[in-house]
Amino acid sequence: MKDFVFQNPTKIIFGKGKISKLGEEVVKTSKKVLLVYGKGSIKENGVYDQVISSLKSYGIDFAELSGVKPNPVLSKVHEGVDLARKEQVDGIIAIGGGSVIDSSKTIAAGFYYEGDIWDAFIGKYKAKKSLPIYVVLTISATGSEMNGGAVITNEKTKQKYSFWSVKSYPRVSILDPSVQFSLPKIQTANGAADVIAHVLELYFDGSRNVQIMDEISEGIVRTVIDSTNILIKTPDDYEARANLVWSATLALNGINGTGRSGGDWASHAIEHSLSALYDIAHGSGLAIIMPAWMRYTYKEDVEKFARFANKVFGIDELDHEKAAIMGIDRLKDWYKSIGLPVSLSDAKIPVESVDKIVENAAMRTPFGRLKKLQPSDVKEILNLCV
Amino acid sequence: MKDFVFQNPTKIIFGKGKISKLGEEVVKTSKKVLLVYGKGSIKENGVYDQVISSLKSYGIDFAELSGVKPNPVLSKVHEGVDLARKEQVDGIIAIGGGSVIDSSKTIAAGFYYEGDIWDAFIGKYKAKKSLPIYVVLTISATGSEMNGGAVITNEKTKQKYSFWSVKSYPRVSILDPSVQFSLPKIQTANGAADVIAHVLELYFDGSRNVQIMDEISEGIVRTVIDSTNILIKTPDDYEARANLVWSATLALNGINGTGRSGGDWASHAIEHSLSALYDIAHGSGLAIIMPAWMRYTYKEDVEKFARFANKVFGIDELDHEKAAIMGIDRLKDWYKSIGLPVSLSDAKIPVESVDKIVENAAMRTPFGRLKKLQPSDVKEILNLCV
Repeated sequence: MKDFVFQNPTKIIFGKGKISKLGEEVVKTSKKVLLVYGKGSIKENGVYDQVISSLKSYGIDFAELSGVKPNPVLSKVHEGVDLARKEQVDGIIAIGGGSVIDSSKTIAAGFYYEGDIWDAFIGKYKAKKSLPIYVVLTISATGSEMNGGAVITNEKTKQKYSFWSVKSYPRVSILDPSVQFSLPKIQTANGAADVIAHVLELYFDGSRNVQIMDEISEGIVRTVIDSTNILIKTPDDYEARANLVWSATLALNGINGTGRSGGDWASHAIEHSLSALYDIAHGSGLAIIMPAWMRYTYKEDVEKFARFANKVFGIDELDHEKAAIMGIDRLKDWYKSIGLPVSLSDAKIPVESVDKIVENAAMRTPFGRLKKLQPSDVKEILNLCV
Repeated sequence: MKDFVFQNPTKIIFGKGKISKLGEEVVKTSKKVLLVYGKGSIKENGVYDQVISSLKSYGIDFAELSGVKPNPVLSKVHEGVDLARKEQVDGIIAIGGGSVIDSSKTIAAGFYYEGDIWDAFIGKYKAKKSLPIYVVLTISATGSEMNGGAVITNEKTKQKYSFWSVKSYPRVSILDPSVQFSLPKIQTANGAADVIAHVLELYFDGSRNVQIMDEISEGIVRTVIDSTNILIKTPDDYEARANLVWSATLALNGINGTGRSGGDWASHAIEHSLSALYDIAHGSGLAIIMPAWMRYTYKEDVEKFARFANKVFGIDELDHEKAAIMGIDRLKDWYKSIGLPVSLSDAKIPVESVDKIVENAAMRTPFGRLKKLQPSDVKEILNLCV
């Protein structure tokens, strides 16, 4: 087990109807907040009204930034920073999933930075200060509700990069599983693929002697699979939804990464190049890329891939190489079974895209920890996705 | 899954040699601290010197309270409060295990309370303020290094009670697994029994639809068993020690209790009456009491006990009642195999003790959630321990 430092200050308020607690928390730091949200589905499912009602009952004023898109972009962040300054807010409330939360974190850090906050994504600036951030979660996937990370796409440079800061942990995140009942099934499936990817990026990073972490990782994956299987049929099953929601948060709140080597993250890197160039949901991109990455790299750690097959899918095959492949195939089949694409053609991305994605990824290669990938490796992995 | 609020601000610094980081952390809040420790084994194994060296390099002054005993007592806490005030400290460093940490938490809260801090244990006072607490952990068992709870025995009233406060979370806990290499085997075993008991108190509380929590619970128990089996033979196996240390912390840092009904805690309550009256280590007491409690109550939730047998011991018995009993027996056998007592006579506690323990427990009955226990139930459980 590797040395580590772990601290996570985010307060989680979990349960049906808990959005009413928002004002009580926000008033501790803020008098006027910027509400950040997406296309406005929150106005249809009642979440927006619950937020406004809670803020009003504590006399909290607000401005609004709507229209944050999936694979959120830097220009929207700039718009948010300008608005936050103009409106002189002293806090930010993200109402949404990863895209909204990550945009909010970036706006919150950008508020105090004189340069372009993109500098935080390319290592030129270390965020020292941030507006306090509050989250009302409407889709479980990224785990951003309980960590200090954010992923943003710079549309000009076609770079989808991330930053992390100890200042970017939300103060409070409200997780009401029932607000996710109305999600389209494909979004639940995309979220599940994202959660599993977070776990597996950490799980398959070549770490040794991390039994307690492996046990937790496997438990999260089993729970995500079981819960998603129920939700694909019954989207308003509260208990399955609650298990998926909390598993998604636990998958990337830091606990699961303790004692490990830092994660592999090559699948995410390749997917970020894919979704920086093509309009595809992050979870769908991962459902395509990750099994291909697993297939390409499993020989680096056959034992661990065989363990995965056994612990997650109950595969009892003594030949570990066979077991490893069976486990990867089962994961891919499961993605298919919940309606996710598992090839570029499933996602209607042209074969010619491979070279473009490789070129984009080459801005950051080499990446990956289990196997350090060069552009030629990325190309071979993408060829497995055609 | 039940609604919950989760927040845990403690910073964990984990790894060999990390005690050197102490001064750097303490100096953020404190100029003069009270060092709290036990019989002085920390002076033999080098921990004391590492602490002093780190404090000195940051110019931090200190006073000392030594001699905290297992099953720590209120009179020692009073001594600590007086000393902390006399020496005008502005922080406390607990160097030890649960007894030292719990005494430190109580002193830290007592420092700001004009009455007797025992009031916090009997519900007369809610701790509003506390000196900052830092921990250098020397034995893994109670999980007190990452929560807000403390257990203290009032020698006069023979009450072993607990209090919990959001103000009592340690600021920073340093977990260096290598300092536990020199522990006597029985102490490692006692710690393991305590950790498993924490998990099972939560696991067997009658909660439904908590798959993610059950997965984590079972993973912790499997890891504790596997690691302890190694450490009983090879106490200085760093990797096994590290897995046990971190599992012990995770068992009671709040995560494992989210979404549940609050835990059963009857086994702890009975054990607290046992160790308030007799000189027995808490872990040994639990190794005696818990299997008996399981045997007495399993019919309240046969399915869960059968699940435990399957997930922890791999018992594949279709008759769930049989499986439940097999699982309980296996746990008891395992305690025996690592050198723990599993009956009162193993621990040289006289048969006549049963009535005294029941009488002590009767100060707090009814307790327990899976089955609400009256004094007559406690007596039946103790009769299973003779």
